[in-house]
Amino acid sequence: MIAGIELGGTKTVVAIGSAKGRVVEEYRFPTTLPEETLAIASQWLAERGEPRCIGIAAFGPVGVTPGRENYGQILATPKPGWAGFPLIKTLAAAFPSAKLTLDTDVNAAVLAEATIGAAKGLDDVAYITIGTGIGGGILSGGRLIHGALHPEFGHLKVPRRPSDDFPGVCSFHGDCLEGLASGPAIAARWGRPAHELPADHPAWDTQAWYLAHGILSLLAIVSPSRVIVGGGVSQAAGLHAKINAQMVELAAGYFPPALVPDYVYPPALGQEAGICGAFLLAIS
Amino acid sequence: MIAGIELGGTKTVVAIGSAKGRVVEEYRFPTTLPEETLAIASQWLAERGEPRCIGIAAFGPVGVTPGRENYGQILATPKPGWAGFPLIKTLAAAFPSAKLTLDTDVNAAVLAEATIGAAKGLDDVAYITIGTGIGGGILSGGRLIHGALHPEFGHLKVPRRPSDDFPGVCSFHGDCLEGLASGPAIAARWGRPAHELPADHPAWDTQAWYLAHGILSLLAIVSPSRVIVGGGVSQAAGLHAKINAQMVELAAGYFPPALVPDYVYPPALGQEAGICGAFLLAIS
Repeated sequence: MIAGIELGGTKTVVAIGSAKGRVVEEYRFPTTLPEETLAIASQWLAERGEPRCIGIAAFGPVGVTPGRENYGQILATPKPGWAGFPLIKTLAAAFPSAKLTLDTDVNAAVLAEATIGAAKGLDDVAYITIGTGIGGGILSGGRLIHGALHPEFGHLKVPRRPSDDFPGVCSFHGDCLEGLASGPAIAARWGRPAHELPADHPAWDTQAWYLAHGILSLLAIVSPSRVIVGGGVSQAAGLHAKINAQMVELAAGYFPPALVPDYVYPPALGQEAGICGAFLLAIS
Repeated sequence: MIAGIELGGTKTVVAIGSAKGRVVEEYRFPTTLPEETLAIASQWLAERGEPRCIGIAAFGPVGVTPGRENYGQILATPKPGWAGFPLIKTLAAAFPSAKLTLDTDVNAAVLAEATIGAAKGLDDVAYITIGTGIGGGILSGGRLIHGALHPEFGHLKVPRRPSDDFPGVCSFHGDCLEGLASGPAIAARWGRPAHELPADHPAWDTQAWYLAHGILSLLAIVSPSRVIVGGGVSQAAGLHAKINAQMVELAAGYFPPALVPDYVYPPALGQEAGICGAFLLAIS
């Protein structure tokens, strides 16, 4: 029995699945306080048997490097009650004989998309998600990137679109990529949430411009073969095509990986990428 | 006998060294046409014995992934005569019994700095070089990053410093990081080469501003524990301190790896980083 837990900022998914990364049975519920959330997930799993291995895909920042002091802990997050929560210690107490494997939700998603999704078979893939925040997971040479912490893709800075003077909404950086192009940024900039903006609204050209600049930084630093753009905001009709058109213009004949008309893809696994990735982490 | 070749855009270094990455004897000469350059290096090595293994640190773009069609070739470069040159094939013909290991000059440099230099013992390190161009090499989790091509760090885009309207000198992108902050960019912007600008010249604040923004992108994408900034332009007195001050301001309390007063270091190996890295590649 392979188990997966996707711990998201607003919802949690707990599931059992196959070694190929497919969901057999799942349960989705709102993420509340940490003890309560983990208790619900653990009980649901325990009712279904004794998992041999559990993959955990967690929101960040989170300590994901085994052996480091902060391994398995949720780090400095504004989410009430979660900063410093010992995620892995809590799960290990509930399932003492299970092997636990932890990574970020976006690393789980890139692993799933590169194994069974929109970048199947590729070794160099980035997955970015545009929703309440902006995050990124990276597979490089077939291995997930961690670094000293893990990528915090949303917080890089990109050039301003000419004549754009929106101040940005990031509470740390104002006009970092997340501050300019996340769901809350779109709502603040245009006075309406992203899902209410029609496909021909100028918001989407602005959005494509900023996302393409962020992806250009990925390309310059880790050179992915393909970039998957997911998350709620990415579901706007035509957004991926707009980003691709921007990428071609920005690359200007340079960057061989991006000299293709379809460098940026939507996810193939949709909302299941995180939990499928958790299964793949579990058996890794 | 361990051999190393550092093939640079303007000079080539061929050397024999130790398994610990230290130079025993070296020869530096100008890089000319490819056949001639390789013939000089091969002859110098052959006069010293039969190398068991040769590490090659080459300017890019270059195919560095074994098994790919372009492996061992210099790719699309403006450098006359070099585009498409079969570097590894040529060396394999000269040294049929040697094991050849190829990587970029900047990946060799980051490997050397992380093994015996300014980031000794760290697994997550970036090395950037500021000279005729801007390049970057990345060690992530103890492994060198390649991706679909290899990093082209100099060509990412960063925000303009307020009131800066210098158009940039990159022939592809105009105002990418390299277009705004490389040696030729400094010379074009201020009318004098970098080494003639005194330490209190405003050029260095501008320079620190752009480099810090590029390093912020590295931090957001691969989260290095430390960043080494080398290359001719980096030798200006006080530049590293200026970049560190900018980094603290830009990070704004986020990005734990950079919340230290000395995140950005000068190289410890200076001009020897590339050739020392070539030895380390050779024995890898």
